[in-house]
Amino acid sequence: MPVIVQKYGGSSLATPELIRSVASRICSAHDSGNSVIATVSAMGDSTDDLLSIASQVSGMPDLRELDVLLSTGELQSCALVAMALKDMGKNAVSLSGAQAGIRTDSSYGKAKIADIDTSRILGELGSGNIVIVAGFQGVTNDSDITTLGRGASDLTAVALAAGLNADRCEIYTDVDGIYTADPRLVSKAQKITTIGFEEMLELASYGAKMNPRSIELGMVYQVPILVASSFNDKPGTLIHDGENMDTKVGEIRNRVRGIATDRDVAKITVFSVVDRPGIAAALFDPLAESDISVDVIVQNASVSGTTDLTFTVKQSDVDRAMKVVEEVANELGTTNVGKTENLAKISIVGTGMQDSPGYASNMFRSLAQADINIEMITTSEIRITCIIGSDHVAKAAEVLHGAFELEKSE
Amino acid sequence: MPVIVQKYGGSSLATPELIRSVASRICSAHDSGNSVIATVSAMGDSTDDLLSIASQVSGMPDLRELDVLLSTGELQSCALVAMALKDMGKNAVSLSGAQAGIRTDSSYGKAKIADIDTSRILGELGSGNIVIVAGFQGVTNDSDITTLGRGASDLTAVALAAGLNADRCEIYTDVDGIYTADPRLVSKAQKITTIGFEEMLELASYGAKMNPRSIELGMVYQVPILVASSFNDKPGTLIHDGENMDTKVGEIRNRVRGIATDRDVAKITVFSVVDRPGIAAALFDPLAESDISVDVIVQNASVSGTTDLTFTVKQSDVDRAMKVVEEVANELGTTNVGKTENLAKISIVGTGMQDSPGYASNMFRSLAQADINIEMITTSEIRITCIIGSDHVAKAAEVLHGAFELEKSE
Repeated sequence: MPVIVQKYGGSSLATPELIRSVASRICSAHDSGNSVIATVSAMGDSTDDLLSIASQVSGMPDLRELDVLLSTGELQSCALVAMALKDMGKNAVSLSGAQAGIRTDSSYGKAKIADIDTSRILGELGSGNIVIVAGFQGVTNDSDITTLGRGASDLTAVALAAGLNADRCEIYTDVDGIYTADPRLVSKAQKITTIGFEEMLELASYGAKMNPRSIELGMVYQVPILVASSFNDKPGTLIHDGENMDTKVGEIRNRVRGIATDRDVAKITVFSVVDRPGIAAALFDPLAESDISVDVIVQNASVSGTTDLTFTVKQSDVDRAMKVVEEVANELGTTNVGKTENLAKISIVGTGMQDSPGYASNMFRSLAQADINIEMITTSEIRITCIIGSDHVAKAAEVLHGAFELEKSE
Repeated sequence: MPVIVQKYGGSSLATPELIRSVASRICSAHDSGNSVIATVSAMGDSTDDLLSIASQVSGMPDLRELDVLLSTGELQSCALVAMALKDMGKNAVSLSGAQAGIRTDSSYGKAKIADIDTSRILGELGSGNIVIVAGFQGVTNDSDITTLGRGASDLTAVALAAGLNADRCEIYTDVDGIYTADPRLVSKAQKITTIGFEEMLELASYGAKMNPRSIELGMVYQVPILVASSFNDKPGTLIHDGENMDTKVGEIRNRVRGIATDRDVAKITVFSVVDRPGIAAALFDPLAESDISVDVIVQNASVSGTTDLTFTVKQSDVDRAMKVVEEVANELGTTNVGKTENLAKISIVGTGMQDSPGYASNMFRSLAQADINIEMITTSEIRITCIIGSDHVAKAAEVLHGAFELEKSE
């Protein structure tokens, strides 16, 4: 019997009616002759509600206890989905992360999955049960509850699919699939039918809505992932690296697959840094210790022994980051630190770019013609990213979508 | 170091401010040189909220899944209390029922505690931690979550106190302690300073607000239980059977200790039942199978081969009970079944009554003088209970409180 792991996001489970609707979908998958494991997120905004209570109880909530607290949201929705399934006459059982055998390290709030003991799940499937697993959580070797980070119910699903050697992982959410650009910004954005893991990874890391760790995991374990809506029956987007994939076909391979945007960007520049070994470590180690993620880093060529070092952080981290940088500025031989807020990242992504010239110049020229200034540029083999003013991001996405003919993409 | 187990009810934890206030109380107990374990209920009405969601998802929620769902409320509050304690500079750790080693049978919704493996709690206490335990829940040998029944966080506390051989169990709630009568009914009701387990058991079973199973457990394991308010520092009521207790002193022993009232009563009478062996089983077995608790049972003396059989159930169960009784009426040789709704129980309780005449007649005379009709009477060694119209219960409580001089009780 084929084994399918499904995942339903919080917006798909926000009300009792939606929970019953999700249960019906799970029923259908089971009625089609599959063994079904479904991972669920917490209902609607309930995780935010719990975070709000925690912040009222403690100025800086203890991470172990925060994980205990946050894990309850997924426990509630998995019990409710199992209840709804039984109400529909199905055999079903809910399992917490611990019961499902999801063992993690003890990095509370961002635990990494160490391994999955699938014996309980296999036993329940063997007894004819549909298995509903609380997403986003695991358990340490000391039986303490951990969470895997925001949005990590995707990760639970893909990890279970990998551990169970499932035929497919299906991620159900409130959007129809992966689009060539954010449809709120680009009216002609097209749904992508199939996409490779690498391309999806770049899209997900650079703004498209999916947990990047889950895509990495899917890539490593070669688990095909379907992203689709739980609110309709449209076909969604299949992420895989199969033999006969469209992405292997020259015509599609040789193209930009999508545009990723991210408006939560600020830039910090440290001017006139003394150019000697170790300055990058002196700057970025304390930022890492303060748990501030640094994204794009650009260091200009050294002029007369000093250099300018620019990097981006999340808009919400910029004040904390400035404080850290100003504290270490002396070590860098400078006191000249500046920030620019309200920036955005816009990226074009596609495996077709790596061997083909012309994509970068087309991108820069299109932005220039639209009178959009580029603040920074960074590239990977299959991605070109520009930092621009966040006011320009909608226009930039529209222009690039046209320039790379993405409205014809499928 | 003395070991104290505390329990805080849902109304004591209803808001983030109250959670911090409870944490302060736990701090004080710890600062006084005690090892402290605190059991907590779910915040405010959150259990009712979860039940309401469950009923919207399933007409008859599966009991295993309902237990998973309901157990999350206590998990949340125990994480929040531990967070607040750490915020106050204390070492603290929250434990679920499973982590605390509370092993139960698998009677979902009303599980019985089989044993408590105290090793994890003792380890945490040994590491200098205050231990916060989620009340109301346990775990089966198959690692499935169970709950112990409504109001059973008291039971968790007393069971932990027994298992840890604690010096005292303290139950904190929204009332100051146990009163000679419900203060909402009797303005002169007095707080009781100390009371024996047996008397408390009769009071708790017959309307005073405390989980009867937890009192039984305290009695069997001789755990002194303090009932007090978390909203003030008044001394509360101590339930124990100590050597030098007031209840052993003749003056107090020889008295009614309190009046218990319960308005949730209805009466069913089966008339003209054929009087032969097995009729009671034929009637009460199907009621038990339908999970309807029968309370007071009275069978009148047989007249000409038939008898009238009367029993009480909860008002909320009366329609279901009537249906069951009408179905088995043929077997009982009758079709004549009647019900009376809107009744109440009123009981006087005291170990002093068992060897002393006059209490019953005083009770019946006092009610008669107040023109209150008695529908049924039932007694134990230390309790006399009358069934009366629920409209009369406040007046009856007032009258009996005066008749037995309870306003002078302490």
